[in-house]
Amino acid sequence: MKFPEQWALPHIQAIHPYTPGTQPEGDGWIKLNTNELPYPPSPRVKDAIASELDRLPLYPNPASRPLRSAIAKRFGLDNSQVIIGNGSDDLLNLLMRAFSDGQADALQTFPSYSLYPVLAAIANAKLQSVKFDKGMDLPVDELAQHPARICFLTSPNAPTGVGFSNASIRQLLSRFDGLVVVDEAYADFAEENAVELLKDHPNIVITRTFSKSYGLAGLRVGFALASSETISILDRIRDSYNVNRLSQAGALAAFEDPDYYAEVIRKVIETRERIREALIAAGWEVYPSQSNFLFARPPQKDGISGPERSLSAFEYLNARKILVRHFPSNPLTADYIRISIGTDNQMNRLMESLQSWQSNA
Amino acid sequence: MKFPEQWALPHIQAIHPYTPGTQPEGDGWIKLNTNELPYPPSPRVKDAIASELDRLPLYPNPASRPLRSAIAKRFGLDNSQVIIGNGSDDLLNLLMRAFSDGQADALQTFPSYSLYPVLAAIANAKLQSVKFDKGMDLPVDELAQHPARICFLTSPNAPTGVGFSNASIRQLLSRFDGLVVVDEAYADFAEENAVELLKDHPNIVITRTFSKSYGLAGLRVGFALASSETISILDRIRDSYNVNRLSQAGALAAFEDPDYYAEVIRKVIETRERIREALIAAGWEVYPSQSNFLFARPPQKDGISGPERSLSAFEYLNARKILVRHFPSNPLTADYIRISIGTDNQMNRLMESLQSWQSNA
Repeated sequence: MKFPEQWALPHIQAIHPYTPGTQPEGDGWIKLNTNELPYPPSPRVKDAIASELDRLPLYPNPASRPLRSAIAKRFGLDNSQVIIGNGSDDLLNLLMRAFSDGQADALQTFPSYSLYPVLAAIANAKLQSVKFDKGMDLPVDELAQHPARICFLTSPNAPTGVGFSNASIRQLLSRFDGLVVVDEAYADFAEENAVELLKDHPNIVITRTFSKSYGLAGLRVGFALASSETISILDRIRDSYNVNRLSQAGALAAFEDPDYYAEVIRKVIETRERIREALIAAGWEVYPSQSNFLFARPPQKDGISGPERSLSAFEYLNARKILVRHFPSNPLTADYIRISIGTDNQMNRLMESLQSWQSNA
Repeated sequence: MKFPEQWALPHIQAIHPYTPGTQPEGDGWIKLNTNELPYPPSPRVKDAIASELDRLPLYPNPASRPLRSAIAKRFGLDNSQVIIGNGSDDLLNLLMRAFSDGQADALQTFPSYSLYPVLAAIANAKLQSVKFDKGMDLPVDELAQHPARICFLTSPNAPTGVGFSNASIRQLLSRFDGLVVVDEAYADFAEENAVELLKDHPNIVITRTFSKSYGLAGLRVGFALASSETISILDRIRDSYNVNRLSQAGALAAFEDPDYYAEVIRKVIETRERIREALIAAGWEVYPSQSNFLFARPPQKDGISGPERSLSAFEYLNARKILVRHFPSNPLTADYIRISIGTDNQMNRLMESLQSWQSNA
């Protein structure tokens, strides 16, 4: 008899899973590594969840209907243009699965969200990558000429935080012969988003998440906006009860408290800009950010720069229970650390540690 | 420019999605159609969920580690032999995806859980079906000779409620050259389950759910038990945060209150047997059930029997806001209605309605 691995499909046996950012156990950590919101979600969330606790024996609304309707209404779309996922990862997975396989390639920019290559591998699809140059502008010409069926774009991009203009996304939509997924996980922290492009472009899909700006990473809720036709494809292949009852209720309550979030987001952006300026003043190179994190490269010291220097900063912070993220595997990212925006207190502690690192290490 | 459907893969365009049982809106329904528990979950569940509400901004434990450990310990397994899913549907989906595709067939018994054909279609896999005969015994010989890579078996079976003996499952495990998934969604209501077979058979996967016996369908939590090798395959391709924070906490609290559930399950079984006897006394044909539902065929009246008669019962109940399930599309199931076991009060109301239907309709 064979071992079970050998029955698994060859491309599945070969998969290297996605590595999520560390979720440290134990207290006392300043957690600036997975772009979570440092503030609590809307106070309405707790009440909404509490009011569902007597209905736990019952299956949830299979289509997350009330949440779909609220989202459609806010964005001026038809209900059939919205789908809810178990996190936006669920929807990205469905998109990759529905539009790419061994015969149909997928396409991404690089560097970007490191989940896309894993999703392509699970779908047994070839993932073409177009590299950013140092300026991190959207490489429309190169992307448009690829014969892929689906293109994944994170905007604002991760891990750089750089946003792409609607003008450039619109160009890509017009010229690319396939679906363009604009993964807007961080759009609530940006000056612009691609929602208005839905009107004229049937080939755009916008994905959003409640994990970042809504402070609900623990609930796993995301959504996608697209043409009715695209949403119908995703609805056909999603789990029939993909979002649980409490997460539907919590996300809806949050979504219906825009005033609360406008204030929270304002605070995050204010802190982001203050820290960016402070880092630049201390000699760091920092990309302009449209997100809730900063991608920052430490200045050289004693002739040492590059990956060695960014790793030193990462480890120095880590030893002081300040967790940031470091992407050493690629030359375009290895010189940097990615810092999620925390509360002002947390960021002050970060800056103190970085100052002492720059002076001493 | 094409329409988005045309970019989707051909087998995805062709999919007919799974139709879950109706979740009626509005009050006053006696809901006996989706095998939910008619009793509340353990009172510990609410507290466990409440204690997580201050951590909603943080991602959940990606591997649902505490829940895995508790389950492994209870079943005398290693932690590496357990995986948690967003409902057991999530895990069934991963199993189909990892072990079958256009080159590797899947296999099922028929009738069985109607999700398997949908999952096979999404995986672009051919699903072979072996039909039960009227006795509903496991057709080991026929299953064993199929050259499929993975075989799905619901035990106790749905929609019949009939359980398969470990002796017959053991035979299948020894003779089938591939993975055998024993979907034990209803095993807590049965006299026997297949867990002991994990010791000697590396090719068994057992799936379980918190949606039925634990009264937590609203939370979407399931788990699978298998060899470490099989679990490792599933871990590679699952969503990295597939189970949200509240569902992990709620399921763990329920799992750690076995005394509460022993009593609840005893009540369900007692009610099931009482109603089965009453239906048989009223002339119905009812399969012996190892689950929390009954599969029952009404007696003929005025020369009318079969699908027409079962549909009449279904509609009569439905008009009185009693929801059961009817599977008209197949001759093996069309003569029956499936009745989930509710509280004694609910079942008394059901029996009164059925009596008046038998007298009048």
